[in-house]
Amino acid sequence: MTSTVPMRPEAELLAGLAEYVAIPSDSRSASAETMRAAAGWLAGRLSFAAGRVEETDGFPVVRGEWLGAPGAPTVLVYGHYDVQPTGDLAEWHTPPFELVVDGSVHGGVVRGRGVTDDKGPVLLVVEMARAMLAERGALPLNVQFLVEGEEEIGSPHLPAYVHAHADELAADLVISADGAMWRPTEPSISIASKGLVSMDIVVTGAAEDLHSGRYGGTVANPVHALSTILAGLHGLHGLHGLHGPDGSVAVPGFYDGVDDLSPGRRTEIDAVPFDEEEYRATVGAPELFGEAGYGTLHRLWERPTLEVNGITAGGKYTVIPHRAVGHVSCRLVGRQDPDRVVAAIGAHVAALAVPGVRVEVRVDEGRVPAYRIDPDHPAVTAAREALAEVYPGQEVLLAVIAGTLPATTLFETALGAKTLFFSFATADEKHHAPNEFLRIARIAEGMRAWAALWDRLAAWTPAEVGR
Amino acid sequence: MTSTVPMRPEAELLAGLAEYVAIPSDSRSASAETMRAAAGWLAGRLSFAAGRVEETDGFPVVRGEWLGAPGAPTVLVYGHYDVQPTGDLAEWHTPPFELVVDGSVHGGVVRGRGVTDDKGPVLLVVEMARAMLAERGALPLNVQFLVEGEEEIGSPHLPAYVHAHADELAADLVISADGAMWRPTEPSISIASKGLVSMDIVVTGAAEDLHSGRYGGTVANPVHALSTILAGLHGLHGLHGLHGPDGSVAVPGFYDGVDDLSPGRRTEIDAVPFDEEEYRATVGAPELFGEAGYGTLHRLWERPTLEVNGITAGGKYTVIPHRAVGHVSCRLVGRQDPDRVVAAIGAHVAALAVPGVRVEVRVDEGRVPAYRIDPDHPAVTAAREALAEVYPGQEVLLAVIAGTLPATTLFETALGAKTLFFSFATADEKHHAPNEFLRIARIAEGMRAWAALWDRLAAWTPAEVGR
Repeated sequence: MTSTVPMRPEAELLAGLAEYVAIPSDSRSASAETMRAAAGWLAGRLSFAAGRVEETDGFPVVRGEWLGAPGAPTVLVYGHYDVQPTGDLAEWHTPPFELVVDGSVHGGVVRGRGVTDDKGPVLLVVEMARAMLAERGALPLNVQFLVEGEEEIGSPHLPAYVHAHADELAADLVISADGAMWRPTEPSISIASKGLVSMDIVVTGAAEDLHSGRYGGTVANPVHALSTILAGLHGLHGLHGLHGPDGSVAVPGFYDGVDDLSPGRRTEIDAVPFDEEEYRATVGAPELFGEAGYGTLHRLWERPTLEVNGITAGGKYTVIPHRAVGHVSCRLVGRQDPDRVVAAIGAHVAALAVPGVRVEVRVDEGRVPAYRIDPDHPAVTAAREALAEVYPGQEVLLAVIAGTLPATTLFETALGAKTLFFSFATADEKHHAPNEFLRIARIAEGMRAWAALWDRLAAWTPAEVGR
Repeated sequence: MTSTVPMRPEAELLAGLAEYVAIPSDSRSASAETMRAAAGWLAGRLSFAAGRVEETDGFPVVRGEWLGAPGAPTVLVYGHYDVQPTGDLAEWHTPPFELVVDGSVHGGVVRGRGVTDDKGPVLLVVEMARAMLAERGALPLNVQFLVEGEEEIGSPHLPAYVHAHADELAADLVISADGAMWRPTEPSISIASKGLVSMDIVVTGAAEDLHSGRYGGTVANPVHALSTILAGLHGLHGLHGLHGPDGSVAVPGFYDGVDDLSPGRRTEIDAVPFDEEEYRATVGAPELFGEAGYGTLHRLWERPTLEVNGITAGGKYTVIPHRAVGHVSCRLVGRQDPDRVVAAIGAHVAALAVPGVRVEVRVDEGRVPAYRIDPDHPAVTAAREALAEVYPGQEVLLAVIAGTLPATTLFETALGAKTLFFSFATADEKHHAPNEFLRIARIAEGMRAWAALWDRLAAWTPAEVGR
């Protein structure tokens, strides 16, 4: 079975993506107007599906639906129009909110904040659907579109919206355009994603920054206290705790709900072709590193992490800063309970007797548990077949999204629908980092694959698809 | 003996200070043009002393001299026209480079970056000299002015300049308009200042920031490594090193050249009226804190410190930052050798086995040893008398500048002259911090005191003054 749809010329899709990327919809810092502009732009591309912007208690969602295939299954296409902050602008080689085509690497890429996470992968589905409708006059199944604006901040207002609109959004399967193939060398389907919690550890000393000479030795320095607290979040090599982090998380209770890696899963992962040295060279680290007793892929796919994402404290001038803040987030696996994880970290920090300062843990709103879909689920089977069609002769790997897709658990709860990850981003495309890019070839491949997937799912009953 | 000079109206001096403060001469970030503008402005006020801007290998110095008192001693007035960075602008209540008069606190203050460190204290000497000349037609002694533009970055180019111009700059005594009375409640003379070294501890992991999910668990996080390194710079409470810093520096060799506090000096300091709770309330810290076995004033005046002034690393977004930098500086006392201190820190950091990252210690140029003048030095005696005249009935305390005046050792070496600290800043005036201010009353007090000091020194022979 082969699905053919005439593809809109890539140049035309890229022209749209250029407009879309130019709207700096960073959900941590953009104004409501900017977020609405991004939502409105996307809604405009969904005119064939009554595309519109709908309110939530936070940034709005983009909705649309084409329900002209009675009796056929209904899929809900999920994605997001918000993007990550740019980070240090000095590290960007091209302007983050300008789509730049670079033919010199990876067979051609486009660069810009959001091109791969998640504006490009969403836009290619929208454009595929539009092309399919133009060609055939109908889609093979019913499609809902739900594109949110708060994914990068943990989707704090999506649950209330989805629960309130569960009847309208009814679907047999959610297909997420967010996510990523885990590497560029072969097609892959992700069957799980990690959970996420985040918080700030705020240490306060004096009322204001103090001259490090004129007040030196009289008060505690919050940066020293914070360093000690952060050093205490991980296990340490060496008897007296001063020989570097050992890669494990030292917070009592953190690993509750994390199953030991079964011999079977270990064997499965070890069978995946994976060149450690090539991976190391790609990320540019002096060596790979992590929790003892686990290989790199074991850690990436199956183990939870606690990362200090940054520290805000003083600067290069001779003061005793009055405040030091550690920005911390955890990626969760298995049955780790987000609420219990943040409570355990709070208790661990509170138990450290740090003199002379006030210590407070401020937990962020979004708390997302880990998610998993059965590798034998019919949607996974259909997706593997669709990928096999687009990438003939290549084995389709079953991988894990080490990232977090907050909506998955929500859809399971509110809509009773599992989520299939079907993204044409690739994990090396500098998601969340400066110089984010998207391989241009993935656009046409992705459009063909989505068409193939829909045609396959359309051939099944809703009950089969939504099993 | 009473010195009277007609004082220029405060308002006129403040108008000048407003122009001077408006030039943002932050020696860490300002352009050469801005620094030259500040130097040029001050040189213009020194027209009575052939004021001029002279080149160094860095930012220029302001020079001037009035040498019309043959046979009388020659004093060199030292200060600086550069200022500290503003730090976080959000913490300033008024624009940092705008002189704002606030009559609501401390009997009236002016606010702005540099008002107390060191633009105000220098300008009041200049204006006093101008007024004295206008009144008397002559100064009572010979005066050299040397005002540098790199004090806040450790005076890296001052030594070469002073050595090259030692003959021109010959003086029997240096009087520093930089420094500060240690508190507002009584007059004080500082007889020592601490040394200073600074450095960056740079930890590098991957080539760029990595998505904390998609790469989580595969590489070391430089922030974790840096936290461990920084935690290891201080002694820690608790057996396993995870119960907070104990206030001592854990770097082997750091305390070489630091004498134990003698019982005599301990008694002397303990006799200084000092209300710990009032001090605590003023700085706004939850409690006072420092090296065990020493009181607050012992630590402030007699003990060296190692402070992490800030950390630059990532931010509040879900990445594994590729770089984390700790900005570290040390205040030195006694015979601590700046070169040996930075070498000891480098060796200590290198000895920590931190896996998965590169660690580098980058030491800054300026390295300043501690400085001391004999409390019985004739210049100290003259200064105490001058202060007693301006602050009748108040005891003049002998204090220590816990800050650093890099030029003192240089003047001793290159000119054979001791330095008297004679500043009318006060240590609580938020030097190096947001909302820096200067008590307006100190301007007239300072002008009267400088006149009284010069008149006293003029009555002595050069040999007596330069003893």
